[in-house]
Amino acid sequence: MWYYEKKLQYPVRVTECNPRLAKYLIEQYGGADGELSAALRYLNQRYTIPDKVVGLLNDIGTEEFAHLEMIATMIYKLTKDATPEQMEKAGLAAHYVNHDSALYYQNAAGAPWTASYIQAKGDPIADIYEDIAAEEKARATYQWIINVSDDPQLNDSLKFLREREIVHSQRFREAAQILIDEKDKKHFF
Amino acid sequence: MWYYEKKLQYPVRVTECNPRLAKYLIEQYGGADGELSAALRYLNQRYTIPDKVVGLLNDIGTEEFAHLEMIATMIYKLTKDATPEQMEKAGLAAHYVNHDSALYYQNAAGAPWTASYIQAKGDPIADIYEDIAAEEKARATYQWIINVSDDPQLNDSLKFLREREIVHSQRFREAAQILIDEKDKKHFF
Amino acid sequence: MWYYEKKLQYPVRVTECNPRLAKYLIEQYGGADGELSAALRYLNQRYTIPDKVVGLLNDIGTEEFAHLEMIATMIYKLTKDATPEQMEKAGLAAHYVNHDSALYYQNAAGAPWTASYIQAKGDPIADIYEDIAAEEKARATYQWIINVSDDPQLNDSLKFLREREIVHSQRFREAAQILIDEKDKKHFF
Amino acid sequence: MWYYEKKLQYPVRVTECNPRLAKYLIEQYGGADGELSAALRYLNQRYTIPDKVVGLLNDIGTEEFAHLEMIATMIYKLTKDATPEQMEKAGLAAHYVNHDSALYYQNAAGAPWTASYIQAKGDPIADIYEDIAAEEKARATYQWIINVSDDPQLNDSLKFLREREIVHSQRFREAAQILIDEKDKKHFF
Amino acid sequence: MWYYEKKLQYPVRVTECNPRLAKYLIEQYGGADGELSAALRYLNQRYTIPDKVVGLLNDIGTEEFAHLEMIATMIYKLTKDATPEQMEKAGLAAHYVNHDSALYYQNAAGAPWTASYIQAKGDPIADIYEDIAAEEKARATYQWIINVSDDPQLNDSLKFLREREIVHSQRFREAAQILIDEKDKKHFF
Amino acid sequence: MWYYEKKLQYPVRVTECNPRLAKYLIEQYGGADGELSAALRYLNQRYTIPDKVVGLLNDIGTEEFAHLEMIATMIYKLTKDATPEQMEKAGLAAHYVNHDSALYYQNAAGAPWTASYIQAKGDPIADIYEDIAAEEKARATYQWIINVSDDPQLNDSLKFLREREIVHSQRFREAAQILIDEKDKKHFF
Repeated sequence: MWYYEKKLQYPVRVTECNPRLAKYLIEQYGGADGELSAALRYLNQRYTIPDKVVGLLNDIGTEEFAHLEMIATMIYKLTKDATPEQMEKAGLAAHYVNHDSALYYQNAAGAPWTASYIQAKGDPIADIYEDIAAEEKARATYQWIINVSDDPQLNDSLKFLREREIVHSQRFREAAQILIDEKDKKHFF
Repeated sequence: MWYYEKKLQYPVRVTECNPRLAKYLIEQYGGADGELSAALRYLNQRYTIPDKVVGLLNDIGTEEFAHLEMIATMIYKLTKDATPEQMEKAGLAAHYVNHDSALYYQNAAGAPWTASYIQAKGDPIADIYEDIAAEEKARATYQWIINVSDDPQLNDSLKFLREREIVHSQRFREAAQILIDEKDKKHFF
Repeated sequence: MWYYEKKLQYPVRVTECNPRLAKYLIEQYGGADGELSAALRYLNQRYTIPDKVVGLLNDIGTEEFAHLEMIATMIYKLTKDATPEQMEKAGLAAHYVNHDSALYYQNAAGAPWTASYIQAKGDPIADIYEDIAAEEKARATYQWIINVSDDPQLNDSLKFLREREIVHSQRFREAAQILIDEKDKKHFF
Repeated sequence: MWYYEKKLQYPVRVTECNPRLAKYLIEQYGGADGELSAALRYLNQRYTIPDKVVGLLNDIGTEEFAHLEMIATMIYKLTKDATPEQMEKAGLAAHYVNHDSALYYQNAAGAPWTASYIQAKGDPIADIYEDIAAEEKARATYQWIINVSDDPQLNDSLKFLREREIVHSQRFREAAQILIDEKDKKHFF
Repeated sequence: MWYYEKKLQYPVRVTECNPRLAKYLIEQYGGADGELSAALRYLNQRYTIPDKVVGLLNDIGTEEFAHLEMIATMIYKLTKDATPEQMEKAGLAAHYVNHDSALYYQNAAGAPWTASYIQAKGDPIADIYEDIAAEEKARATYQWIINVSDDPQLNDSLKFLREREIVHSQRFREAAQILIDEKDKKHFF
Repeated sequence: MWYYEKKLQYPVRVTECNPRLAKYLIEQYGGADGELSAALRYLNQRYTIPDKVVGLLNDIGTEEFAHLEMIATMIYKLTKDATPEQMEKAGLAAHYVNHDSALYYQNAAGAPWTASYIQAKGDPIADIYEDIAAEEKARATYQWIINVSDDPQLNDSLKFLREREIVHSQRFREAAQILIDEKDKKHFF
C-alpha cells in the first residue's frame, strides 16, 4: 500500500496562466504514452513478472504516480486563473463546457484514456519490451511538448521528467538482460 | 507523492485456486465501478474541489489504491496455479490467450477500462455527488460478487472492502453538507 | 410506447447563425452528461427499480428526450446556414468533413457517445444516486455553456433546461428518501 | 416531443425464466444493429434530410423506441426470477456482478453501445442507404436470435419485429427513389 | 496474399506544405467512412459472402488499400515540412504532441479508428447493403473535403478517388442484384 | 500499391470443425497484438521512419497482411460447418447472434479492434521499440493459443507464424542498431 506525503518529487513552477500549454501537457496526463499509462502498466505487471524484476516495476510504477501528480499540478497552475474566454482562445472550450477547469484523463485531442493503450502478456520478455517501448514513447512525447512550450520555468520540470524516462528505459533494458541471463524457461520459447 | 510499503491494507486469504471467482473479481479491478475508477476519480478531482474537501479526496483516493492492490492480490492468488484448462473451464480462456494469467484493467466481460466511466465537472456539488454515487455503486458490486463467491476466506476481505465503501459514502455525504454550508458561491447556482 | 407530437417542450429561438455556439452545445447532445445520457439512463433503469419510483424514471426519461430534441433544434438552427468556411472558423471543420452539418451524438471534443457514461446496478440506492449525480452534472454543463454563450435568446432556453435539471435532482432526492423509508430490504445492506 | 402511453406496440410473452435467451436478445437492445442504434440513427438524421423524408424518419425512429421497449420487456421477463446461479449458468455472471439483473445498453459479448455504430453524413443518398443497410442488418440479427431461441412465445414477438424491419427497409428504398427523383441537387454529385 | 509494388494507383501531387488540409484529409485515412474502413470491411466479408461476389470484394478491398496509401502519401506531403508552429496554427498541435508528424489511424477530430465502424453479418444482402452505404458515405466525405480544400492539384487526386467510390457503389448494386437473382435461399427470408 | 495473388503464404489445414479453437484464434485476427495490429502499425510508420528502415517496415507490414489472411482462413475453416448449437457450445453464441459465422475484427473476449492498440511517435527509436515489443507480444499470443489448441495440423501453421514473429523481432532489433549507428540526430536526444 501507499502513503501520501504532501510534496512533489520535483518542484513545479509555471511562469504565468497559460491554458494553451495546458492543452498540450494533458497528453502526458491522460494520453497513450502519458504518466497514467506508465504507472498503471508497471504496477499491473508486478504480479506475474519474475521476482528479480518485481521491485523495479514497483519502484518505477510508484514514481510514475509522482510524475502524474507533477503533470496535474502543472496543468492546474496553467489554467486555474483562466477565464472561459482564455480557455476558448487556447482551444480548450470543448474541455471547459464539459469539465470547467477540472482535470480529466484524456489526451490533447480529447480522447478519454483507455486501458487499450497498455498491455500485460504474462511473458516476461514481452512485458519488459512493452515497458522499454513505453519509456521511449514517453520520452518522445516530452520532447514534442517541450518543442511547443514557451515557458522556460515549466520546461525545467519537463526536462527533469524526460530525463527520468531515459533512466527508466535504461533500467528496463538492464532488466531485459537479467531476464535473458536468468533463462527463466517458464515462458521462453 | 506516494511512498510504497510492502504490506496490504487488510489481509487477503484465498482458500484455493479458483479462477471462476477471479473472473468475477476482475470487475472490481478494471470495471466501471471498481477500485481503479475510484482511486483515479478522487485524486483527479483534488485540484478544483474547495479546500475543505481536498484532504478527504486525497485520503480516500490513496486508500482506493490500497484496495486496488488487495483486489489484484486476490485475483493473482486465485489464478496463479491454474492450468490453461482450468482457466478455460472458468470462462477465462479469452483472457488467457491475450494475457496468460497476468492481470489487466478490464471488467468481467472483458471490456477495457475507460476514463469515460468517471467524471470531473469542476462544480463541487456535482463532483461530490459523483463520488457518493460511485461509492454506492462500488458497494453494490461487492455485494453481487459476494453473492456468487464460494470462498469464505475471500469473502472476509470482500466484506471489509464493502464496509469501507459504506464509510466513504458517509464521508462524502458529510462533505456535501460542508460544501452546502460553506455557501462557496463560486460554482453554486 | 411513445407518441410524437410535432412541438417542442419549450420554444427554441436563436439570434443568428452561430456555429461557434453549436460546437459547445453539442456537449449536451452527445456528451457524458448530456440529454441522451439522461434519457437512456432513466428509461433503462425502469425495469429493476422498485415500483414506487418507476413512474418518476419514466416521466423524467421521457422529458429528457424532449430536451434532446430541443438541443438538436438549437444546434440545427445555429449551423444550418453556415458555410464550410464559417464551420471551419468555429472549430467545426472536423465535424464538417465527417458529417456536413448533420447532427451526431458526440461531445464537444468529438468523442462519440458511449454507454460507458451511464450505469444501472440493480441496487435502488446506487441507481438513484447515479441519477442525482447525473442531474447535478447536467446542471453544471448547462452553466458552463451559458458562460460561453453570446446569444441571449438561446440562453433563455438553456436556463429553462438548467432549471429542469435542478427540479429533477430534487425529485430524485425525494425518491432516495422514499426508497430508504420503504426499507425495501431486497437490495439494501 | 413524445408522450408515453403504458402499453407495448405488440404483446410480449415469454414461456419461462430463460436467462440464456436474454443473453442473446441483449444484442438487439444495445448491439451494433439493435433497436437503440435504429431509433437514435433515424431521429438524429431528421434535421438535415430533405423535407419529403423527414416524416418517415420521424415515424420509424419513434417506432424503433417502441421496439426497444419490447426488447427490454423481453429481457426483463426472461431474467427477473433468475438466481445468481442461473445467471452464471446462462453465461451472464459477468453481467450480474456489474448490473445484477438490471438492463444495460451493450451487445451480447458485453461491449457497451457506442455512437460509432451509426452515421449521419448530411448527404441524403448516403444517409438513406445507411438506413436501408441498418434495416437489413437488424433483420439478420433477428434471424440469428430466432435460430438460437427455444421459446416459441417469444419467437412470435421476434418474428413481428423482424417483419417490421423488412417493412422499414422497403420504406427506405422508396425514400431513396423519391430522393433520386426529386433531383435535390444540393448534395448530389 | 499481396505483393507490393512501389507505385501509387494514381499520382498524388500537392501544391505546397498545407497542414490545415492534412487535418481534414485524415478523415479519409482513419475516419468512420475512410479508406481503412473500406479495405478492412470488404476483405473481412470475403469469407462468408456467396462465391459469385467474393472476387468483387477481393478486388475492391485490395484497391481500397491502394487508396489508403494515396491518402497517406497526401497527408505526408502536406505535413512533412511543417514546423511545430505551422502544425499548431493548422489545429494539429494535439496531433503533434502525440505523434510528431507521423500518421495515425484517427478521424479529423482525433478519435482513433475502431472496428465498430464496420460490420459483417453473414447475411449476403445485409453485407452488400452495408457496402453500398459505405461507398455512398465515402463519396460524401470526399465531397466535404474537396469543399474545404484550397489545393487544386490535390483536388485532382481527390476527385479521382471520389469517382472510384461511385464506381464501387455501382458495382455493389449490381452484386446486390446478382445475389437476389441467385435466390441463394440459405440466408434469405 | 498491392497486387493480390490467390494463395496463402503458408498452407493452412484444420483437422475438423472446431469453433472452440476459432474463438481463441480470433485474438490474432482482431486482438491487441494480432496480425491486424501488426500490419497496420508498420505500414503506417513507413512515412516518417528514416529511409534505411522504410523497406523493412514495408516488407514486414505486407507479410503481416498475409498472416492476417492465414488467420482468417483458419477461423473460417474451423467454423464454416458449425451449427448454431455448436457455436453456442464453443462460447461463440454472442458472436453468432451478431455476425453469424462471418469474421470480425475483435479479440477473443469480443472487444472490437481499436487503433489505440498501436502507436506512431515520429521518433525512430520509439517507433522501432514499439515494433520490437509488438513482435514479442504477438509471439506470446501465439504461444498461449498453441497451449490451448487441440489441433496438431493447425498448430503446424501457428508455429510457422510464431517463428515469423521471432524473425521479425530480430530484424527490428537490427534496425534499432542501424538507427543508433546512423546517429540520425534529427529526433535523438
